[in-house]
Amino acid sequence: MKLRTEQLERFDRDGYLFFPSLFTPQEIKTLTDEVPALYAQRRPENVREKTGDVVRTNFAAHLYSYPFAKLARHPRMVEPIKQLFGEDVYMHQFKINGKQAFDGDVWQWHQDYGTWLNDDKMPAERAMNIAIFLDDVNDYNGPLMFIPGSHKRGVVDAKHDLTTTSYPLWTIDNALIGQLVERAGGKNGGIVAPKGPAGSMIVFHGCLVHASGSNLSPWNRVAVYLSLCAVSNHIRRFKRPEYIAHRDFTPITTLPDDCLLKNYPVELPWKNGMPASALETSTDDLKLAA
Amino acid sequence: MKLRTEQLERFDRDGYLFFPSLFTPQEIKTLTDEVPALYAQRRPENVREKTGDVVRTNFAAHLYSYPFAKLARHPRMVEPIKQLFGEDVYMHQFKINGKQAFDGDVWQWHQDYGTWLNDDKMPAERAMNIAIFLDDVNDYNGPLMFIPGSHKRGVVDAKHDLTTTSYPLWTIDNALIGQLVERAGGKNGGIVAPKGPAGSMIVFHGCLVHASGSNLSPWNRVAVYLSLCAVSNHIRRFKRPEYIAHRDFTPITTLPDDCLLKNYPVELPWKNGMPASALETSTDDLKLAA
Repeated sequence: MKLRTEQLERFDRDGYLFFPSLFTPQEIKTLTDEVPALYAQRRPENVREKTGDVVRTNFAAHLYSYPFAKLARHPRMVEPIKQLFGEDVYMHQFKINGKQAFDGDVWQWHQDYGTWLNDDKMPAERAMNIAIFLDDVNDYNGPLMFIPGSHKRGVVDAKHDLTTTSYPLWTIDNALIGQLVERAGGKNGGIVAPKGPAGSMIVFHGCLVHASGSNLSPWNRVAVYLSLCAVSNHIRRFKRPEYIAHRDFTPITTLPDDCLLKNYPVELPWKNGMPASALETSTDDLKLAA
Repeated sequence: MKLRTEQLERFDRDGYLFFPSLFTPQEIKTLTDEVPALYAQRRPENVREKTGDVVRTNFAAHLYSYPFAKLARHPRMVEPIKQLFGEDVYMHQFKINGKQAFDGDVWQWHQDYGTWLNDDKMPAERAMNIAIFLDDVNDYNGPLMFIPGSHKRGVVDAKHDLTTTSYPLWTIDNALIGQLVERAGGKNGGIVAPKGPAGSMIVFHGCLVHASGSNLSPWNRVAVYLSLCAVSNHIRRFKRPEYIAHRDFTPITTLPDDCLLKNYPVELPWKNGMPASALETSTDDLKLAA
């Protein structure tokens, strides 16, 4: 899949691209069938909602689940990002966010690159977010919201929110959000929320300010969120555990386009649990070979 | 304002009616201008969000604020309800819900009549909810959501939720919400959220199941929510303080249609604070004159 000039221009202006129904229902079924078993596992990669036992985020399934390992190498997802960066990419983060029916809590306004910079010392904004819907997304199940063009502002001030939800996040000041929304059109387009069937994909800039509301509907809104980072832009510090911020900077080798429906060999290095080293963290800068 | 046959049929089927822009911007301005001063008051009628100092609900402003006292007697609001019940009505509850920008929290799925029955011993469902938008309501500032037709189920089982938000509520089991939404059309109309400019009004049945999401947008979503009860159906128990569930069953006398823009005399009995008796509560049934 190659992005057209018009798409490249739109991405530059708005900070995101939406691809409705990029994956077929058959392809998505190979992924959703796997989620209950993943969420049922008692492992540190499952972070639960503060209200109880419902999983909010599962990390790094591409290292221990066969269907997700194939998704992580899917050309429809990886190729456009390589095109945007003009170089190879590696997997910086891979998560399955279960904004489950009734229990799904909010994600406050934030930029992902703020976290990558502050926590991981990622040198530049050359990492991209990708959201792949495993469920239909509608008005009622907490769609992802963006402030178009907000990526142009670069990294903005943020404070570390450790209390609102069950996952710590660098969140942005309300007054600044108000300004960004106003600049993007106020009540006429200042906030957008792409909605569509399962299998849709959003690509969005690491500096694009985004949030999502609660899910009070009876419909799950499970989505894969992953971040692909340009290899030359790999992180310089291992302050967060490896299942959250990956340390393997090997370029992704894509599989054929039919990989979700057919069998292809992939490695599952964390199949029997993550290595102890993945939990080791450091606030020191990485010693780089000269 | 008189409801037409088609509106009466729609209300019977769906459990709600929506009147976009029923009040003019000039009329609404007389109300919104008053809200900051009301919210700033330190009185028990202001209930704040659990996250801090932002007001979630202000109660009984019609007893101490001149513009809201006139709204409480507005014929465009009161006459349709008298028509629906075929008798006079009194004010059972009057609140200004400030689902403020960024801080507005969810209201879980509930029926209001559940509370009126369980707490106030209101004999029948002959009380109506009215929502009047003081701000524009859009997709992003936590619109009220309904399950159309759910009022036909009558009173459903509920549990007393004292923890989710800062205001206790009788909330409904998730499995039942799922069934009601499915019966109402599932993803095709099983949940609706009327949106429109400030000055719009929603009338909805006391048994209609409703909820509202968080407001992460930079736009306040302040609305007046009030309940008009048929006089013969007045509550039989004073378990809740009077500023929450009123004890004056005098029929409302409407003012002229231009009352928000002109001066008309109204009483403001709680202008200097509520009487001590308003906080006295009892779990005994009311002694009714034979």
